[in-house]
Amino acid sequence: MITSPSSLRRSERSRRATLDAALELCTERGYGRVTVEAIAARAGVSKKTIYRWWPSKGAVLLEAFAEVFVNATPFVDTGDIDADLRTHVTGAVKLLSTPPYGPAYAGILTELHHDDVLGRAVREDVVGPRFEAAVGRMRRAQEQGQIPAGADLPLAVEMIYGPVYYRLVLRKPPQDEETVAALVAHVLRSLRAVPADPAVDAPAATGG
Amino acid sequence: MITSPSSLRRSERSRRATLDAALELCTERGYGRVTVEAIAARAGVSKKTIYRWWPSKGAVLLEAFAEVFVNATPFVDTGDIDADLRTHVTGAVKLLSTPPYGPAYAGILTELHHDDVLGRAVREDVVGPRFEAAVGRMRRAQEQGQIPAGADLPLAVEMIYGPVYYRLVLRKPPQDEETVAALVAHVLRSLRAVPADPAVDAPAATGG
Repeated sequence: MITSPSSLRRSERSRRATLDAALELCTERGYGRVTVEAIAARAGVSKKTIYRWWPSKGAVLLEAFAEVFVNATPFVDTGDIDADLRTHVTGAVKLLSTPPYGPAYAGILTELHHDDVLGRAVREDVVGPRFEAAVGRMRRAQEQGQIPAGADLPLAVEMIYGPVYYRLVLRKPPQDEETVAALVAHVLRSLRAVPADPAVDAPAATGG
Repeated sequence: MITSPSSLRRSERSRRATLDAALELCTERGYGRVTVEAIAARAGVSKKTIYRWWPSKGAVLLEAFAEVFVNATPFVDTGDIDADLRTHVTGAVKLLSTPPYGPAYAGILTELHHDDVLGRAVREDVVGPRFEAAVGRMRRAQEQGQIPAGADLPLAVEMIYGPVYYRLVLRKPPQDEETVAALVAHVLRSLRAVPADPAVDAPAATGG
């Protein structure tokens, strides 16, 4: 099929209307009561149009959530890894405390236990790239000498995100700014207290 | 109603049969397809008997899960907090990787987003006491001088449990023993790198 510029424009309008409708319905009814039928009716598109682009309502809501989440929680680089991680995690916690985003993501985390396609989309399209971005930001901090060379960055990212997920899935009150600051400080201290790994340092010493 | 010793014995037999039936059905069908009706039929008790003791299938499975989980992951005290936390977390990760326990708990975490009674039961009857037990074990390590006096123990417990939940709810592969060891080592290092809090140390200095 050849897509003309006008059909592409129409697609983007429908996509936007679909995502907005899904988030609105999630706010009004809660994740469990959102249906593809209701999204289609609210967005003014056909169910067929929705299913052409997304396999399920979970996939629609994942795209809607991820778009807002990625914009709301950039990995800034002010040259201060402590401050930048605090900024990032505080933004994430705040968004996850805001309906419909937190409940929508909790709903998606629920559904991925029954929906392998959605589970893959969550891990590969959303969590994976965010995880890599977090590791990337910490790697720059390593290059700037703020984190030791041998530090286990993927472990650090899990130590930061883990407690946020923990509270979200248990429906405990989310972290406040002070708790986020303590969390980030502890994770960075744990990396800085690790003696640099000679195996990791050696090539840098020979190559540099 | 006066309960005679024989009716109490019968109750314990029914309770045991109900919990076993729920776990068996969870293994065979997956959490989502377990019903109170099927549990009753398998256990040889009436639905009314089940509803006299538990408000939902989630509550039955929570009790079945928690009983096994608590027994499988004691907070031992060999005098070595690093080793004891590794033992505890490794036990937890292994159980959560074993059907039906991991999938059952993931199902319970799913359901608590729609079921406030179950959510409270998870937080107050299972997670809360386990959390306190973990803090208690670390407090003994503090008294033994293995963790500094001013350390933020509740934060440490979230840093340990968080990554375990993170992988469970995202359906990522669970931690292996090496990763558990690295996680525990990092969390303890983060506490030991924290300068002792003068406000916390002061009373001990005056009182001791």
